[in-house]
Amino acid sequence: MNRQLVLRQRPIGAVDESTTELVTRPKPVCGPGQALIKVAMLSIDPTIRTWMNDAPGYLPPIELGAPIRSSGAGVVVASESPRYQVGDVVVGRTDWQEWALADDSNRFSVVPRGLGLDLATVMNVLGVTGLTAYFGLLEVGRFQSGDVVVVSGAAGATGSVVGQIARARGAAKVIGVAGGPHKCAEVVERYGFDDCLDYREAGLAGRLRAACPNGVDLYFDNVGGAVLDAALASIAMHGRVVLCGAISQYNEVGHPRGVANTSMLIMRRASMTGFIVLDFAERFADAQAVLATMARDGTLTHREHLVYGLERAPEALNLLFTGGNNGKTLVVVDESVTLA
Amino acid sequence: MNRQLVLRQRPIGAVDESTTELVTRPKPVCGPGQALIKVAMLSIDPTIRTWMNDAPGYLPPIELGAPIRSSGAGVVVASESPRYQVGDVVVGRTDWQEWALADDSNRFSVVPRGLGLDLATVMNVLGVTGLTAYFGLLEVGRFQSGDVVVVSGAAGATGSVVGQIARARGAAKVIGVAGGPHKCAEVVERYGFDDCLDYREAGLAGRLRAACPNGVDLYFDNVGGAVLDAALASIAMHGRVVLCGAISQYNEVGHPRGVANTSMLIMRRASMTGFIVLDFAERFADAQAVLATMARDGTLTHREHLVYGLERAPEALNLLFTGGNNGKTLVVVDESVTLA
Repeated sequence: MNRQLVLRQRPIGAVDESTTELVTRPKPVCGPGQALIKVAMLSIDPTIRTWMNDAPGYLPPIELGAPIRSSGAGVVVASESPRYQVGDVVVGRTDWQEWALADDSNRFSVVPRGLGLDLATVMNVLGVTGLTAYFGLLEVGRFQSGDVVVVSGAAGATGSVVGQIARARGAAKVIGVAGGPHKCAEVVERYGFDDCLDYREAGLAGRLRAACPNGVDLYFDNVGGAVLDAALASIAMHGRVVLCGAISQYNEVGHPRGVANTSMLIMRRASMTGFIVLDFAERFADAQAVLATMARDGTLTHREHLVYGLERAPEALNLLFTGGNNGKTLVVVDESVTLA
Repeated sequence: MNRQLVLRQRPIGAVDESTTELVTRPKPVCGPGQALIKVAMLSIDPTIRTWMNDAPGYLPPIELGAPIRSSGAGVVVASESPRYQVGDVVVGRTDWQEWALADDSNRFSVVPRGLGLDLATVMNVLGVTGLTAYFGLLEVGRFQSGDVVVVSGAAGATGSVVGQIARARGAAKVIGVAGGPHKCAEVVERYGFDDCLDYREAGLAGRLRAACPNGVDLYFDNVGGAVLDAALASIAMHGRVVLCGAISQYNEVGHPRGVANTSMLIMRRASMTGFIVLDFAERFADAQAVLATMARDGTLTHREHLVYGLERAPEALNLLFTGGNNGKTLVVVDESVTLA
């Protein structure tokens, strides 16, 4: 049988017990061109929350009764496709369930053997999280050596990688924004940012101005709302704002808080650009090679926050919004799967 | 003597009688390297209002007691500079006064003879107004033939030119946004837009969606606020928002209205870029050649709204915010000056 978490009711605000339902359905059968995957791990990403709304997005809303859309990893246990061999560890769209089918409409990528990294690291650094940091900073943000870089959600999975890549590539200064003194300390001590500002304390805009007196060349935004406004107030001439996510807004009920300082984009001839990492899919392999090297040689410090049990996936998703996680949040569905 | 309008008190909201003071000071004396200019016409631009605030901008605030900063045109009546000949009509920073000095720190450009255009047209189409439309659309907005283009402030001096250039260069559709049925009719009938939506009527976002069912490829924003939000809601994949101005906000007291739909930039991989036309100064001459040709051959319809008398400049500035003007607002200081 296949246990699934399906969408029972669209959440208003945070996900709660009424949002998903744990159901048991027949295990899918592997047909021609398909592979059956035993799910090992789920990647818990803020964007999942946006798919639960009945609102236009970059993907259609999750349908009521359907399993929660999610990327994840697993092992191939049966294959009628030349793409997959039994025993391959694969990454792709597993959804929140124990068994998934790969086919032409839902392709998985096979994790190469001998990477020298464990599965959680692969899911974090080589997964959507690390790729988002890489392409957002370097391509969308057109990072240049000498830039003053500010990153929100700096203790988070994507933000911590953004800052470290910027640091490794010659940023003049890397400033994080995170929630609470513990996370801020970690951003500096563990991830090597020059400084980290606590957005929960008053006067963020003023503190950011003091930290970046010549302005912010590149602001990588994971949170939206008030932090985005504070960064806009300090944007440098020809500065670039990369809109990666707006986690402060996803659980908001009613109208989102407006961004007041868009006129600073005029004053400073600056730009603000949104992106979805899937658009860079053709170049993922190149980025993964770079990221794997950084992870192996220790240039890239990373941390995974493991939550055990499929049924705890909704709780794990909420951690992203409460800040109760520390590092990339992953749900372990089957801990017996490991990388060769 | 030299009559000047100086900044007496920084306005809160709209400019009123307490904002400026008409003073009479000695006529400036032309020294070595200088030219004395008899001011003929003032260009009334929304940005002047922003300079009256004691707030950071792309230029420093106007100092209390100083003449209001403004571009304008005039005729050279004395010259000790090889750049200027007596009788030259020149355009540059005149400020709100009857006499101005050109020197190395305040250079004017000489209007070529034989242009075949009158001074008001030159001030409009070849001045900051037309140049802003040209560079904003083509350079900042990276306009491409086939784009669906939306322009706010479409009956205004800049907006009307933006739409006409887009039309002339093969836009799939050009939609204006303006205030009131009279202006909307003019945008379609006089300036040749495909349609024009009245932002004063309810449901702008829905009407914009209906007018651009495949999304807005390029939104040229002159107004900010609610109209910007409506355009963001309909932005197309890889759409471009050009932030030229935010006239709806300049007279606002307290916090500006926030822009709520910035997350659409993520969903649609879109960008929003601010600019100041002065950054393109080195390329003004090329653009002016194109714009002059369009004005002469009738491709570009333009209208100037003339207000007579230096002392009426504050009233003329307010017209931009009330919508009481129709076309490029110019203050005629000396109507005897004409182009050869």
